[in-house]
Amino acid sequence: MIKTDINGGIGVISIDRPPVNAINPELVSHLTDALDSFKSNDDINGVILQGRDGIFSAGLDITHLFPKDREYIGNFWREFSSLLVSMFSYEKPLYSSIGGHCPAGGTVMVIMTDYRIMSEGRYVIGLNEVDVGLTVPYGLSSIFQYVTGTRNAEDLLLKARLISPDEALLKGLVDELCASDTLLDTTLERISEASNLYSPQQVKTKQILREHALNSMKKNFDNDAQIILDSWFSDSGQKRLESLFNKLQKK
Amino acid sequence: MIKTDINGGIGVISIDRPPVNAINPELVSHLTDALDSFKSNDDINGVILQGRDGIFSAGLDITHLFPKDREYIGNFWREFSSLLVSMFSYEKPLYSSIGGHCPAGGTVMVIMTDYRIMSEGRYVIGLNEVDVGLTVPYGLSSIFQYVTGTRNAEDLLLKARLISPDEALLKGLVDELCASDTLLDTTLERISEASNLYSPQQVKTKQILREHALNSMKKNFDNDAQIILDSWFSDSGQKRLESLFNKLQKK
Amino acid sequence: MIKTDINGGIGVISIDRPPVNAINPELVSHLTDALDSFKSNDDINGVILQGRDGIFSAGLDITHLFPKDREYIGNFWREFSSLLVSMFSYEKPLYSSIGGHCPAGGTVMVIMTDYRIMSEGRYVIGLNEVDVGLTVPYGLSSIFQYVTGTRNAEDLLLKARLISPDEALLKGLVDELCASDTLLDTTLERISEASNLYSPQQVKTKQILREHALNSMKKNFDNDAQIILDSWFSDSGQKRLESLFNKLQKK
Repeated sequence: MIKTDINGGIGVISIDRPPVNAINPELVSHLTDALDSFKSNDDINGVILQGRDGIFSAGLDITHLFPKDREYIGNFWREFSSLLVSMFSYEKPLYSSIGGHCPAGGTVMVIMTDYRIMSEGRYVIGLNEVDVGLTVPYGLSSIFQYVTGTRNAEDLLLKARLISPDEALLKGLVDELCASDTLLDTTLERISEASNLYSPQQVKTKQILREHALNSMKKNFDNDAQIILDSWFSDSGQKRLESLFNKLQKK
Repeated sequence: MIKTDINGGIGVISIDRPPVNAINPELVSHLTDALDSFKSNDDINGVILQGRDGIFSAGLDITHLFPKDREYIGNFWREFSSLLVSMFSYEKPLYSSIGGHCPAGGTVMVIMTDYRIMSEGRYVIGLNEVDVGLTVPYGLSSIFQYVTGTRNAEDLLLKARLISPDEALLKGLVDELCASDTLLDTTLERISEASNLYSPQQVKTKQILREHALNSMKKNFDNDAQIILDSWFSDSGQKRLESLFNKLQKK
Repeated sequence: MIKTDINGGIGVISIDRPPVNAINPELVSHLTDALDSFKSNDDINGVILQGRDGIFSAGLDITHLFPKDREYIGNFWREFSSLLVSMFSYEKPLYSSIGGHCPAGGTVMVIMTDYRIMSEGRYVIGLNEVDVGLTVPYGLSSIFQYVTGTRNAEDLLLKARLISPDEALLKGLVDELCASDTLLDTTLERISEASNLYSPQQVKTKQILREHALNSMKKNFDNDAQIILDSWFSDSGQKRLESLFNKLQKK
């Protein structure tokens, strides 16, 4: 489900849960472990997160999650949020290589990383939570605004827009585009600029720059879980999630 | 003074106070009523605010207001601020169609809306308060920064710049330009993307994204009224307002 | 070390400490005096800060500072920070003319001003503190984010990037480029737009717009000095500073 590799001092984590890297509790747990292991590995000065060819991640595993009860979803959301906090406050450079589609939970994961390189192509990226019946909670909203700015965040989130790599570059949702076949090499090259400067000073500066948005994640941890649960189990949320669930069943 | 219409589930509010849609207490009160009425109308999923052909609004009605005393101006500013708060926290998509000039109080109104489409042409838009002797108070500053970013806000506000539609697009003060004769149709088309997703989740997400700027309006409500009054009735404020008043008298 | 001139109601401060305008305690003290003197001069409605031809400032005078002890560096940093606070909250328009290289402490000074015009040419600008072993503290981080936005700040600061005038314009680190031989004239022209509107209302609006970032400087004053000292005297800090010191000795 999670493969790891080390390439010249850079840890590479590949999410590999066919067909679409859907996020379930097991994936969250394995990804957390892989990130922790690279963090404590002194031979590694930076980490790259990638998905599968053509798809970074389709987001939450609705097929698995939709039938579950409030307690299960609450526990899952808390685990996922803890993973996101550890990504956003990761004490080494953390870059993402986005080799394909990256909607919903895929976008949630990559906005936690320091830099996003996406493959050119007919892919989509964006946080379409409002379209699947979920409120974007405080912590995620703050980090999305941190990445794209307040205006772009509003335009993208309230319309639940899934956009092309070109528009994502324009809106600041990704930092760079490149051809699919050079994606990992380009990411390795880019991260070297940061990993060569890996030091306590760099780590502390990143923490200072992100403090406001990170605090929004941390101080709203319980409140945000509540917001997700309330929207998930609301009438309109259940209707939209069920329609998505049924669509996925037919595939 | 205020005309309303419903077009395919979208409420359209037209400010129509010839010649220049100058903002006086009556206009504030009627506009507040129109927005409230559309908010509680379950058949409506979004609202468009527009002005007259060639002029959205010239801003505050200085001819009416300049001769008034501190108490009158204070009451007026509070009513106007309440309208602005209700626009910025409007619980449905709220777009603006800017078919002409939109300086000063015109800009103040449109930055409260979710999306601004402006007619191409020799029009101006901008918050030139400093040039007419008024300080831009905390709440308006926060929302202006929310819309244009901190650097553009400073450049535009400290120089009291009135800019063209093209520059307004570049600086993020408007979101899109279009030909005058397709303005309302384009706005109806754009708002449909948001109004189709109108739901408690969308409303809550908008509230979360805007919370910081909205709080700045709310918590500085009295302080900001004081700041406006102090600048309005200062020597330099009176001098600049009087010069504007005299210019308007001659028209 | 500091030359001053008055040109049509605009005070011009020229930093002139050959060869590279390195910042030492004396320069900080003289620059503070020059700014204070122009602030209280009622004939002056704006101030321009410039460096030498080809170099605005190379940053802190490491040759002078590296051999000093913790107390000396602590005192110096506090004096420098007080200067920065007085620049960022300067009660008149304050523009910078950047006629050449402007790395490190040079960048720190110019981001405190209202507007930056830089000469086209093969110059660099940027905050490369992380590369010389220093953490970027809270106050400077906030102001850097205020100027360039959160994403650009992260990209530039964590990689300690020194960038060209062209990229600086793109990233919002400078506001305008012009040919070297028209630099001061262009800055005089640009500042006139702001200085013509110099008034209590303009001063107050600037204070309101900058309050959040300015507060970050003020409330972290002691904490930030500690952060600088801790990184300066850490093993990795000393190693990087010593290497820079040795390089400068050879020149």
